[in-house]
Amino acid sequence: MKKLMNDPLQFVDETISGILKAYPFHLRLTKESPRGLVRADAPVKGKVAICTGGGSGHIPLFLGYVGPGLLDGVSIGNVFASPSADTMLAVTKEVNGGAGVLYLFGNYSGDTMNFEMAAEMASMEDIPVQSSVAADDVASAPASQKERRRGIAGIFFAYKIAGAKADTMANLDEVKAAADRVIANTCTMGVALSPCTIPAVGKPNFTIAEDEMEIGMGIHGEPGIERTKLKKADEVAAIMAERVINDLPFKSGDEAAMLMNGLGATPPEELFILSSKVHDILKAHGIKVYKTFVGEYATSMEMAGASLSLLRLDDEFKKLLDAPAFSPFLPQWRKS
Amino acid sequence: MKKLMNDPLQFVDETISGILKAYPFHLRLTKESPRGLVRADAPVKGKVAICTGGGSGHIPLFLGYVGPGLLDGVSIGNVFASPSADTMLAVTKEVNGGAGVLYLFGNYSGDTMNFEMAAEMASMEDIPVQSSVAADDVASAPASQKERRRGIAGIFFAYKIAGAKADTMANLDEVKAAADRVIANTCTMGVALSPCTIPAVGKPNFTIAEDEMEIGMGIHGEPGIERTKLKKADEVAAIMAERVINDLPFKSGDEAAMLMNGLGATPPEELFILSSKVHDILKAHGIKVYKTFVGEYATSMEMAGASLSLLRLDDEFKKLLDAPAFSPFLPQWRKS
Repeated sequence: MKKLMNDPLQFVDETISGILKAYPFHLRLTKESPRGLVRADAPVKGKVAICTGGGSGHIPLFLGYVGPGLLDGVSIGNVFASPSADTMLAVTKEVNGGAGVLYLFGNYSGDTMNFEMAAEMASMEDIPVQSSVAADDVASAPASQKERRRGIAGIFFAYKIAGAKADTMANLDEVKAAADRVIANTCTMGVALSPCTIPAVGKPNFTIAEDEMEIGMGIHGEPGIERTKLKKADEVAAIMAERVINDLPFKSGDEAAMLMNGLGATPPEELFILSSKVHDILKAHGIKVYKTFVGEYATSMEMAGASLSLLRLDDEFKKLLDAPAFSPFLPQWRKS
Repeated sequence: MKKLMNDPLQFVDETISGILKAYPFHLRLTKESPRGLVRADAPVKGKVAICTGGGSGHIPLFLGYVGPGLLDGVSIGNVFASPSADTMLAVTKEVNGGAGVLYLFGNYSGDTMNFEMAAEMASMEDIPVQSSVAADDVASAPASQKERRRGIAGIFFAYKIAGAKADTMANLDEVKAAADRVIANTCTMGVALSPCTIPAVGKPNFTIAEDEMEIGMGIHGEPGIERTKLKKADEVAAIMAERVINDLPFKSGDEAAMLMNGLGATPPEELFILSSKVHDILKAHGIKVYKTFVGEYATSMEMAGASLSLLRLDDEFKKLLDAPAFSPFLPQWRKS
């Protein structure tokens, strides 16, 4: 296991410590949990607060999405493991600005269970909480069973748009509705070329031959839909794009935002080769790309691979996607 | 070789094609070379233009540093190979806004030779050109032979500060002086844990055992100063920090900007574990960190490893480091 680390059991806490030293202007720890991070200026009075959380090992997921125009707080689990409900409650209390709290997280059973528990505890403290669960991975279950789908990189769009919606001082129902509408209009499909190693486990989370790839694999190495010989980038782009387009389905005349996400070890050069072909395919389908995001938005430590997410846009989404936001964990964006 | 690509010989051109489709508002090709990219709004009239260039495989180096507040144009070579002087001349002509052009690039013989040739050709077209050569890698030659040192991630500071200086409408001598002063005050030291594969070569650029690392290795796999057993993050951070601090040397009372750069496959989590320890070491030395940058600023495709760069600051540098700049290839920054 080749990792630049100290004690595997301290991996997450040492990461958090480094983050707080690097960006003290941006984030602070919650008083009640060393695994809760909130905006340095939390709570923002009168604004709906948005919280997320999940396992470590996915930066910028999840903590990288806390910031102005984005989320207010995050609960941090061990690598690939859910954070605790106690941490979620600690975060909830410190971000609540009096307008309630939206939990916006990916569809994994541990996270769902703990966020439900935290919501109950919060309601006992008279903090209104609602939840939106991202489930964008089209490879993880058929469209008829969307509630079984995992949440992967497409949650970025929900974070960005719900965060911008909350910044308009919309109420909790309206922010949740925006998040849910993004989730309903986002599809993602990924491929993996190599595994990663959880520090405390010490060996790769799956094995894959030197000439193979897995289509539809999850960001924790969950089985995909097909293991094949390594394909050319254009074929991989076509598999991802056609599956995503047909799922919603996206139609000719639609406008979309596109995210080509790298899982960790895949260089930006390869992401641009993939996104180049996806642009061509979308154009052939009559789908207009309003805005393109290329880079690492949801990783799996040192896994090699990529995922394509598409969000179907309307005028409100475009405005909210272009609204200002800041996090030092994310690439620079510009208004379209 | 596990890469998401098509034809290895088209790797660079397909990358450029993907970039132009993703960010058409940001960059455009030069008319005379398919390997020259300039700001979409080039030339900026009356402003000193800054050009860089180098081999592919290092994104965001080099093309990711073109943008408002940064550079004006870039020449793109094959993977790990210098761009041509002809491309450099094409870029020079399209970015020249009448105030002359600064070539700011890393110290590699092929790049130096071609930029010198381009400067001669530009002077024949009455475009004044000066050059600044970054040589920040303290492991590549002793301090007494700085002119032999390679340029690596520390060039980021020169790009940022020279770009901001040019934005003040300073003249060519002043912009070059700022770049040279950054270069003289920047030191970098890196470590590598795994190799990468040049697409057209098809095999890793070096071999290293599963339990080994190389200290001081260059970003193309150039030999470092020591190959050792894999060390803990805190030891690696200390080796990098002590070497960098002692080189300039940085002294108690100095203010510094710090860059913890990932080479490609190393996850952000590990970079923060390293930077956490570097913060502690700098504090113990009485060196104050004004601003911290953590992320991928100079990569080697899928190499695992990291480098630490420190820039000694003064008031002008702080102001210029905080000036606005934009590139979709770089992490979001905020004014200190």
